[in-house]
Amino acid sequence: MCGTEKARVVKSSSSSAGLDHSETRENGTTLSSHSVINLDHGDPTMFEAYWQRMGDKCTVVIPGSQSLSYFSNMKNLCWFLEPELEESIKRVHHVVGNAVTKDHHVVVGTGSTQLFQAALYALSPSDALEPISVVCAIPYYSSYAAVTDFLRSGLYKWGGDAHAFDKDGAYIELITSPNNPDGNTRDAIVKRGGGKLVHDLAYYWPQFTPITKPADHDIMLFTVSKSTGHAGSRIGWALVKDKDVAKKMTKFIELNTIGVSKESQLRAAKVLGVIADSCQSCDTPDSDNVFEYGKLIMSERWNKLRDVVGQSDMFSLPEYAKEYCNFMGKFTESYPAFAWMKCNRNIEDCAELLRGQKIITRSGERFGADSKHVRVSMVSKDEEFNLFIERLLAIQETSNEYHI
Amino acid sequence: MCGTEKARVVKSSSSSAGLDHSETRENGTTLSSHSVINLDHGDPTMFEAYWQRMGDKCTVVIPGSQSLSYFSNMKNLCWFLEPELEESIKRVHHVVGNAVTKDHHVVVGTGSTQLFQAALYALSPSDALEPISVVCAIPYYSSYAAVTDFLRSGLYKWGGDAHAFDKDGAYIELITSPNNPDGNTRDAIVKRGGGKLVHDLAYYWPQFTPITKPADHDIMLFTVSKSTGHAGSRIGWALVKDKDVAKKMTKFIELNTIGVSKESQLRAAKVLGVIADSCQSCDTPDSDNVFEYGKLIMSERWNKLRDVVGQSDMFSLPEYAKEYCNFMGKFTESYPAFAWMKCNRNIEDCAELLRGQKIITRSGERFGADSKHVRVSMVSKDEEFNLFIERLLAIQETSNEYHI
Repeated sequence: MCGTEKARVVKSSSSSAGLDHSETRENGTTLSSHSVINLDHGDPTMFEAYWQRMGDKCTVVIPGSQSLSYFSNMKNLCWFLEPELEESIKRVHHVVGNAVTKDHHVVVGTGSTQLFQAALYALSPSDALEPISVVCAIPYYSSYAAVTDFLRSGLYKWGGDAHAFDKDGAYIELITSPNNPDGNTRDAIVKRGGGKLVHDLAYYWPQFTPITKPADHDIMLFTVSKSTGHAGSRIGWALVKDKDVAKKMTKFIELNTIGVSKESQLRAAKVLGVIADSCQSCDTPDSDNVFEYGKLIMSERWNKLRDVVGQSDMFSLPEYAKEYCNFMGKFTESYPAFAWMKCNRNIEDCAELLRGQKIITRSGERFGADSKHVRVSMVSKDEEFNLFIERLLAIQETSNEYHI
Repeated sequence: MCGTEKARVVKSSSSSAGLDHSETRENGTTLSSHSVINLDHGDPTMFEAYWQRMGDKCTVVIPGSQSLSYFSNMKNLCWFLEPELEESIKRVHHVVGNAVTKDHHVVVGTGSTQLFQAALYALSPSDALEPISVVCAIPYYSSYAAVTDFLRSGLYKWGGDAHAFDKDGAYIELITSPNNPDGNTRDAIVKRGGGKLVHDLAYYWPQFTPITKPADHDIMLFTVSKSTGHAGSRIGWALVKDKDVAKKMTKFIELNTIGVSKESQLRAAKVLGVIADSCQSCDTPDSDNVFEYGKLIMSERWNKLRDVVGQSDMFSLPEYAKEYCNFMGKFTESYPAFAWMKCNRNIEDCAELLRGQKIITRSGERFGADSKHVRVSMVSKDEEFNLFIERLLAIQETSNEYHI
């Protein structure tokens, strides 16, 4: 089995936005005009080129005798949290300025999805006669409803659109900001007594949105999947103000998975540490910085997409106001990780239309919205994104010819 | 952050059973006669010395650009399972002879605890009016009840002792063999129509018990935590006969944590692969083999424990019959990962008695049994085990003096 890891090192792909149909994909196949492009998931493979350029800076070496124990630090409230990861998390939030860590407990999870469930468990009253409602404004992240309800918990239950929520008593409101799928900045909607808020800030990073202030909420969820692109690591973290809530979230993870992979934690600690170093090493961020790099790619992609979409009235995209980004030190635009695209004219099923052109997207219906909308991943590899743009252009040209 | 991993490499500890009170523990403190010894959890730190001796054989090197994607193999039923891990799992079962992998699907989980929940989810009827009962014969693993019930699922519910189960209709029976806490080999108890069985075979490895035949059940759960000692990796796997059950277990893990740490999978693949190699490299296993090593340490510890316990009638231990172990090629005894110890005479609370001597164990009540029993971890580090033996001897000597 020696050399397994090296054999899996992904082949270099261009970090430029140049189109190369003959490039070999990770699964060994080659993208061609017949290939199906899957932009359904937000698989952040866009970041691969950046980490390849970084070479050995973030390589981790783990000897066979390391991290055998279930425990990382028995004195910590979150006993399975590696101290290096906690330190890196605090450092990166400090240099990016996107969240207050002071007076918050750090709870690590197997991705932020596990932490979302841990938060529901921690916030649900244990003595209630019926499950607490979990709500979120439409359009909401498509997994929230399924993850809330798949075990038919007696503690919590999906309550749907926050705008339509009219029950009395306790509730949990999810606030995703910037929002998945539409990229908008969000605040709480229900604003009633008995409300407990969970802020999902997976996309509150400078490559996607201006960092206007350090977020300072009761429960904030983050993940490396979208901040650094390491989705395969399954590492998320929660910043939690209330000690008892943090304890109960830790208890959930203990019962659910008896902690979180030490290997992934050590790697995330290294990656976040290197990022924090790179942000601190000069007064102004440069393109060696993952956020600056990410923003450059995202802006190029969004500009291309807006160019193509602007060539007809067939599709439309949300607009985002420029805001001052404290991290970048200038006014910047939002370049969300997903495009929330709408089909105009008489097209009722946008996902179906795109599927006909071998582009897989996620229908707006999955987000509690309508089928005229789709969510399109903007964080795929270059070759997939460019093929998407090429096909979108072709769809519009064909439709203009036939006046669809 | 560079060098973080090396700094964490655990200091060498003796693999012999020699007592050394001044040895430094992982958390930087020193074990002394005042130290509390925690043998409550089955933290398998005993294996550290072995993996240190193996040097770089199982070291993994993971570059920053590797495994960014959520996906491992989109063509596999379990799309987040690393192909190398699947191969290593099959190889190690083949050389050890403890389970049939042919005609089984491999589903990887964040430890076998997650897979246990995935199995409950997959086996629960989705259209039942009330939750299916989950039962296990007393004494049963202390976490089963809590993990089954903590979310108050409408799909499944803890039903307690399998011997006392008298409900009609469908049920799920857990069969832990060898059993945690008492080390006994087990079969199904209820044996009625509508029963669905989950075999937890976490301890069916040659260091703990004779391997009498390859297990061949519908759902079999394994974990590296006890087989190789890598509890911190949180890697378990299920061997599942029915394709739809395997698919539904995969769905559970998708909803619960969107897959399993790639870093941990790659490391487990390496460790299990090296083990399979070492078992195949010579006709008879030698002490370079983790199972032979583990059995040697376990037998030394059990012999010491039986010696001490045999010096009075204060405590008693289960006896295990010798059986022919196909892996070792000879008759061997069971040396379970836990000692299921009983206090005799008029002592009603064994855990309390031991706690008074700074020995933390898990009370029999937690396993559905009585407080005269305790479960004691036999897989801790040498210095902890030896201090336990020393204190047990002192308790017996004192009690004999005072005729307790």
